[in-house]
Order: sequence, then C-alpha cells, then structure tokens
Amino acid sequence: MEKIAIKTTKRMEIVDLTSSVVSIVHKSGVKDGICVVYCPHTTSAIAVNENADPTVKQDIINKLAEIVPQNANYRHLEKNSDAHIKNVLIGPSITFIVENGKLELGTWQGVFFVEGDGPRTREVWVKVMAG
Amino acid sequence: MEKIAIKTTKRMEIVDLTSSVVSIVHKSGVKDGICVVYCPHTTSAIAVNENADPTVKQDIINKLAEIVPQNANYRHLEKNSDAHIKNVLIGPSITFIVENGKLELGTWQGVFFVEGDGPRTREVWVKVMAG
Amino acid sequence: MEKIAIKTTKRMEIVDLTSSVVSIVHKSGVKDGICVVYCPHTTSAIAVNENADPTVKQDIINKLAEIVPQNANYRHLEKNSDAHIKNVLIGPSITFIVENGKLELGTWQGVFFVEGDGPRTREVWVKVMAG
Repeated sequence: MEKIAIKTTKRMEIVDLTSSVVSIVHKSGVKDGICVVYCPHTTSAIAVNENADPTVKQDIINKLAEIVPQNANYRHLEKNSDAHIKNVLIGPSITFIVENGKLELGTWQGVFFVEGDGPRTREVWVKVMAG
Repeated sequence: MEKIAIKTTKRMEIVDLTSSVVSIVHKSGVKDGICVVYCPHTTSAIAVNENADPTVKQDIINKLAEIVPQNANYRHLEKNSDAHIKNVLIGPSITFIVENGKLELGTWQGVFFVEGDGPRTREVWVKVMAG
Repeated sequence: MEKIAIKTTKRMEIVDLTSSVVSIVHKSGVKDGICVVYCPHTTSAIAVNENADPTVKQDIINKLAEIVPQNANYRHLEKNSDAHIKNVLIGPSITFIVENGKLELGTWQGVFFVEGDGPRTREVWVKVMAG
C-alpha cells in the first residue's frame, strides 16, 4: 500500500486528497480493479464530496460541529469525543472502482480527508488491487 | 463496471436497487469475491437497510431531514448543502461479499440509493471482482 | 467467508471484534489484499474507533442516542426505527487493507460491532481476498 502524508492546520478541516489518490492509482499500473482509501486515525475520516465550491466544505464542517459539538457531557477526558463520534458517522474507509487505469469518480466528486481533532500530522493509506 | 440508471421523483427518496445489484452479480459469473456499489453523485448516497416495511424508509428520510434540515445558515448557495452533508454521513460506497455466485445479504437487507436533492436522473456504478 | 458469532446483552452496545478479525486474516493465509467486515443486520453496524479508553464507546452510544432517540414520531411500529437510522449513518461494511499477512489498523484503532436493538444473537461476516 501507499501512504499519503497530511499536515492539518486547524481543529476541523477538510483536505483534498483527489490528486494524490489519482496519482497512486496511475502509478500502480492497475487497469481494472478497486482502490481502498483508508484512514488509520480514530478522530479523522474519509469522505467523498463536491470539490468545486469550497463553501460546501465549510457547511459540512459547521453542521457536523452542530450535530456533535465539541463540548457536551462526555465521559472521555481528552476533549475530542466529538471527533471520535464524527469519525464513526463518516467512516474510515471508502472503496472506489478503477477502470482503464483510472480512478472512477463522478463529475463533481473529490476524495477528502476529514480532520476532526487537528492540527496534527496524519496519514492516509491507499491500496490499489487488480481484479 | 456496470451502471444502474435511476430516475428519482422527489427531493428525498430511497430507491431499492437490490434486484439490479443481484442481477449484475449473477451476470458477472463471479463465484467468490466482492461487489462494490458506488454512487458517483455528491448529493446522494448508498445505504443498506430493511426492505420489508416501507415505513422504515420514511422514518429514515424524515429523521435525516430533521438532523440536517434543508434550510439553515448554509454558505453554499445552491440550497442543497443538506444533501451534501447527508451524503458525507451516509457514504458513497458499500462493499458486499459474493459467495457461490450470490450477493450475500442478510435476511432483511436491501441495497438502496438515497436521493438527497431530486428529482434527478442518476446512476449507480457496480463492480464485481473475483478473488 | 468466515462468520463471527456475537451475543449482545444490552439494547445499545459496542462489541470489540478486533481479535476475531485479526485471527481470521491470519488463518486465511492471505499476504496482501483486503478484508471486508460486513454486518448482515439492519439494526446494527460496523465501526472503527479507539480501543483504548472505554469511555469513548460510552460517549459514542450516548451521543448517537441523543441524535437519533428511540422514541420519536416514527411510523415503523417495531420501536427500533432509531436503530435502522443509526445503521444507515454508521454503515454495514468496512474494507481494510491486508499487508504482509496482517490486518492494517492504526495504532489506536479497533474493529467494532455496533448493536442498536439488542440484546440479540448476531453475526458478522468477514471476507479476506488476495490481490
């Protein structure tokens, strides 16, 4: 598998991984198969969404913070229970289809890393598999 | 990969894809492997849930609309930020297990397309892979 | 595929499957590939999160119950619509990467079964695939 290194700069942040994932698929030489994008952290996640209008990212971050606020009656003492919970809702792994050597994305789709407890040094794992 | 064409008729709607996906797996001739069901849109998603009682679908739609209402203080101007956010929560892709040439589903499970910003013409991509 | 048998004891409960999944990957003999962990039920789900501090699990359960309460204006009469909705949000399936014969997990990650309508006898399906 390949690793994408990420450095986040805010507590909550959505980082575009699309070109990195596209490039890993290209370098893999796999023509037909799948591509698994996996987040090995417990307070961040992987999402697919619009990569055109940046206000979409801000709306996602704001609404997630409203649904699962940082400060609530949590028992975990590290002040990041909200990030753990958002991670469970968003999920750590998305499987993509690869065809003709290309990561198959919809017209408006990008692949994103969703930071929930930054700023931190993070990584995302990518596995391309022929089949 | 195969494509399933979908025409939604409401803004929010849950469309049963189970028989289409089962049929694609069957036609693929794959005996053992996986099946990736992937949504290429940014305001709709893929879910697995009960395909017996239709009130479940209605409860899912209603509660999602309550958690992420269409009208709120969003910055994105297309009036569909709610659909983008629900898409991030539900997710664009589910990987199923294929055994003995059959899509492995639990007794009550169906595969569903979750429209968040219809009515629209949509498609879902399906990749069956032996292994 | 392999099956993990689970017996839950409460209505909402998070059960650690990590050692079972690790052991299935080990026994499969697969060196490089993927591992699909799949929940065949419609009122439970699969999640990855912290397996160190048990208060994280409790915070996840409590906040999910707040976001999607058991009693609300639901139409489905089995009094478990909340569990169906949480299942749609969390998701039934996570795909992991396998390398050097090992399930690749982040330092703090565990694989969890999220019961939403227990106590029940459940199972989780695991498919390891080389590639």
